[in-house]
Amino acid sequence: MKLQSNPSKPFDVAYQGAAGAFSEEAALRFIGEQPLLLPCRQFEDVFDSVTAGRALRGVIPIENTLAGSVHDCYDLLRRFELKIAGETVLHVSHNLISLPGARFEEIREVRSHPVALAQCENLFRRHPQLVPIPVYDTAGAVETLMRENTQHVAAIASIRAAVIHGAYVLLSDIQDQMENYTRFLLIKPDDGEAPDGWLSDLKTTVLFKTADRPGALFECLRPFAELGIDLKKLESRPLRDEPFQYLFYADLVGNAAAAPMREALARLKQTAAFVRVLGSYALQSRSSLG
Amino acid sequence: MKLQSNPSKPFDVAYQGAAGAFSEEAALRFIGEQPLLLPCRQFEDVFDSVTAGRALRGVIPIENTLAGSVHDCYDLLRRFELKIAGETVLHVSHNLISLPGARFEEIREVRSHPVALAQCENLFRRHPQLVPIPVYDTAGAVETLMRENTQHVAAIASIRAAVIHGAYVLLSDIQDQMENYTRFLLIKPDDGEAPDGWLSDLKTTVLFKTADRPGALFECLRPFAELGIDLKKLESRPLRDEPFQYLFYADLVGNAAAAPMREALARLKQTAAFVRVLGSYALQSRSSLG
Repeated sequence: MKLQSNPSKPFDVAYQGAAGAFSEEAALRFIGEQPLLLPCRQFEDVFDSVTAGRALRGVIPIENTLAGSVHDCYDLLRRFELKIAGETVLHVSHNLISLPGARFEEIREVRSHPVALAQCENLFRRHPQLVPIPVYDTAGAVETLMRENTQHVAAIASIRAAVIHGAYVLLSDIQDQMENYTRFLLIKPDDGEAPDGWLSDLKTTVLFKTADRPGALFECLRPFAELGIDLKKLESRPLRDEPFQYLFYADLVGNAAAAPMREALARLKQTAAFVRVLGSYALQSRSSLG
Repeated sequence: MKLQSNPSKPFDVAYQGAAGAFSEEAALRFIGEQPLLLPCRQFEDVFDSVTAGRALRGVIPIENTLAGSVHDCYDLLRRFELKIAGETVLHVSHNLISLPGARFEEIREVRSHPVALAQCENLFRRHPQLVPIPVYDTAGAVETLMRENTQHVAAIASIRAAVIHGAYVLLSDIQDQMENYTRFLLIKPDDGEAPDGWLSDLKTTVLFKTADRPGALFECLRPFAELGIDLKKLESRPLRDEPFQYLFYADLVGNAAAAPMREALARLKQTAAFVRVLGSYALQSRSSLG
């Protein structure tokens, strides 16, 4: 339901990128039909918008199976007081997109996000006349080339970005590796609501800092190992003010509000220097959109 | 000693970036006086050059205290069969660099590596007329603006890059946070040599994959915790062919060839799905250059 006529009504969901960005696609999967979308320039703007109430929820990429974790988003999860309320996984497909009517032979410059350029290396190897130009986002590269009306420039982005901006798909599925997925998180203010699904349907993300002694990380993982809780991912991020010290983000299977996880978290708090539960949440699969 | 007159003689050290890159500065710290330098376009070229014998050693950045780990280099350490032979830490200082004679008021475009641009956000906030343009490397941005002779363009790079390319430092130390360090590794072919320093002077980096069961990572860390070996860093990287499965890189204090570490590694091999020691090495400090 579009409600642009009412300026006091918050947006349904904020995301980073231009219209047609992969994050927008993830947002549509979380929110369903015709949400009021707030595209943001930077990841930080997404967190800001949700914190300030301009948007009810936000969607951020957290990990790509080829490129790895999205550092900036991990750092923002720590800086802002929002909760993770869901996750979804999108298959990433890259396409060479141009002005309508452009021919492949004319293209000299290919603009996209550096990660997308790196994932299409074979294209540049086979066609050395194409010069890769890094820009801030994939869909934004399509928007720019349409606005600038430059016949010799192409962008690498999703089919959706081409459709939305009225651009032309010169080549589809140009990524080097077809198995390419990005995991997105839904973030929202902490409203005290807790999920009550089956334990194994949910994931809990915990942020912690270890004490500064040998074996400290091992001791932090002990409660989860001893209670049979599966650790799906462990991500470390540097502490800006303490060079070469780290924070850890652990993705664990289970619900923070339910028995073994609650117990494990209580034990973690006794050994870690700092603990914060970022949320318990379910996977939003494609099929649930119906 | 420069030996360019003898083409069969290998380079002393390969690094990524243009002349004046931060990696070059790290290379000089490792190698000492007037090494024969091989600047490479990509990190992969550094690994390639050392593997093929075109360069005796390579230097790569592995971690920045603000931006985090350099994913690509972690992946290349796994793909290539080289050893880590040393590490060093550089203080990173960013500077606004232009053509000689340019005035700050004329500058409209600022080119640099995306990480350097992100580390100078305050500059762009205070001077909205400056448009940040991401390019592949910091020193390369200086080289390009000198070649193109563009008065309204500046680059963000090191003082060294300005000096080498005959450019002008408009503003120095423009990074938002002064505590900004990058850690570099020295890599070389595995010549069977092992360091024999004091245990606590050395670090050992181990690459391993956990078995696929709850508590598997905890079990992999157990030998080190039980033998009192300090884990300085644990980095996870996605496996390209197994979405949402990870490899771990552990930085441990001690020498792989000496008693407690040798024992811990033997125990790790019994529980992990895969283990490879990437090297035991010492920290090269500034003072050792004399």
